Amino acid sequence: MRVLLTGGAGYIGSHTALVLLDQGHDVVILDDFSNSNPEAVRRVEKLSGRSVALIEVDLADRERAAEALKDVEFDAVIHLAGLKSVGESVAMPTKYYRVNIDSTLALLDIMRDRGVTKLVFSSSATVYGDPEYVPQDELHRVGVGLTNPYGWSKFMNEQIIRDTQLAWPELEAVLLRYFNPVGAHPSGRIGEDPSGIPNNLMPFIAQVAVGKRKELSVFGDTYPTPDGTGVRDYIHVMDLAEGHVAALNNSAVGVASYNLGSGTGSSVLEVVRAFEQASGQPIPYAVVDARPGDVAEVVANPEKANRELNWRTSRSLAEACRDSWAWQSSNPGGYTA
Amino acid sequence: MRVLLTGGAGYIGSHTALVLLDQGHDVVILDDFSNSNPEAVRRVEKLSGRSVALIEVDLADRERAAEALKDVEFDAVIHLAGLKSVGESVAMPTKYYRVNIDSTLALLDIMRDRGVTKLVFSSSATVYGDPEYVPQDELHRVGVGLTNPYGWSKFMNEQIIRDTQLAWPELEAVLLRYFNPVGAHPSGRIGEDPSGIPNNLMPFIAQVAVGKRKELSVFGDTYPTPDGTGVRDYIHVMDLAEGHVAALNNSAVGVASYNLGSGTGSSVLEVVRAFEQASGQPIPYAVVDARPGDVAEVVANPEKANRELNWRTSRSLAEACRDSWAWQSSNPGGYTA
Repeated sequence: MRVLLTGGAGYIGSHTALVLLDQGHDVVILDDFSNSNPEAVRRVEKLSGRSVALIEVDLADRERAAEALKDVEFDAVIHLAGLKSVGESVAMPTKYYRVNIDSTLALLDIMRDRGVTKLVFSSSATVYGDPEYVPQDELHRVGVGLTNPYGWSKFMNEQIIRDTQLAWPELEAVLLRYFNPVGAHPSGRIGEDPSGIPNNLMPFIAQVAVGKRKELSVFGDTYPTPDGTGVRDYIHVMDLAEGHVAALNNSAVGVASYNLGSGTGSSVLEVVRAFEQASGQPIPYAVVDARPGDVAEVVANPEKANRELNWRTSRSLAEACRDSWAWQSSNPGGYTA
Repeated sequence: MRVLLTGGAGYIGSHTALVLLDQGHDVVILDDFSNSNPEAVRRVEKLSGRSVALIEVDLADRERAAEALKDVEFDAVIHLAGLKSVGESVAMPTKYYRVNIDSTLALLDIMRDRGVTKLVFSSSATVYGDPEYVPQDELHRVGVGLTNPYGWSKFMNEQIIRDTQLAWPELEAVLLRYFNPVGAHPSGRIGEDPSGIPNNLMPFIAQVAVGKRKELSVFGDTYPTPDGTGVRDYIHVMDLAEGHVAALNNSAVGVASYNLGSGTGSSVLEVVRAFEQASGQPIPYAVVDARPGDVAEVVANPEKANRELNWRTSRSLAEACRDSWAWQSSNPGGYTA
């Protein structure tokens, strides 16, 4: 298969590209490099020993995107393009809604024009909002009590894809609800390269370990969890990447949603200790106020994906810390350094 | 006040413009005439004896819209621009999402750039979905079980406005949730001019009364209502228009939502009989299957608007039928004939 990967130069995109290439698929990456680096694509090519077609365009700019894709053949799309910082989305809501929704709308119209019917969409466990129960399965209510435009844009894109499928029954779409992707390719050659202060826990810890930041801020330690810090379901990015390819290989009918998570929760302090062990570095931290909108515990029930996609996670939190450390310690400045 | 009316040439826009002008406000109408007619604006000018500034641009085309508004002063915005056919939204979801969401995002960015902080937004009782209770107040849950992209786009725009206000606290926004607007200005000079087959009950009845259509289709007569046909809250468009001006005059803080409805439900057959009386014409009808997604009863609890906006409906269903008939009988082909 020849797969169009929107946002393919990013953290999840670059790892997904590698898995696709290793399984013999051809890859076309579309990216505007607004929050990623062409170096990631070069490293993917090196690691795989194969070349990748690269299209630099903003997908939300529908006319330019359609023009850029005019002569490009592809059989399926994995749609990862979008803005992803929760905090930034609160500060710049109209930008987040515009980029994330317009890019999906443009893509759906391009796919329909071109007769490409297979779509895998990068959604998020954020669509579940404040959990009614844990672990959450795909029947958990969605779109209630979401706390930021990033999460709402994921929910809205899911709804837009569902409505598009009702009007265009040939569309086969898979909505992948990510829990917390961490880690890196075990080579340490590609990984998460956040701009500015990392929003996510593990890249922040990694930057503390490598000496780039002084200490970790732990947001709250009075949650009703074993050690009081928030519990999340961390999934190795290589497991996540394999989940995308499993979704692509599955012959879905209509729109199906799947949790991509490990099914196991880890607290902030457990991640800190695991990273200290993997890296041999101390991770000083300070407990600060909990963030509004944060919840105590988010853990996936991944049984539907296990069963229907014949996919499950196989990598541990310790491996994720080891691989994240390999990436961070050999690329302390990310791709640009 | 100088008020920018987006979609101001449409059914609700033209009546709102008239009320604004009659109350001494200045009006700037922005419309792309994709589903309206400049003749409506000319008639508003004639009826009011005042002139209206007219800007012809697609608001969803953010750069052109910003350019067109560059030298135009305005103190407040009533945002009515958008696509509104439920059935068409099911058939063309990406178009509906794009037009309705992009126009709101463009408007919010333009307002912020220009320092205009007062917004009244045209929402819909559709955001309540399948009613949990009737009559519905503003505390009724929203965004659950909506059945079409038109309704979802209203819900999404409400959320976008709320998130924008959190990032931009000076914004004062009022979300008006319309129930079923009907009727026309009592002069019969302006009114609802749907293109193609009318989606809404009263214009359909009016076209049957005037001989343009053979009979009315009544969608279902086995609902749990007194006569088995669906019950809705019909609100005279002049009452609705006055609600917009009341919202504009109110000094809201943050984002407030209000139902604009009469608080009284009428069944399809009651509307048919009222129209027969008002017009003196027989309205033949045939009962056909209920439409998927339709619900038995939707009626507003308008007490919050009564109390906080000092607004209430004052016109009856009989008056709405009389005014609708005055419009339809003197303009059998709408504005274009």
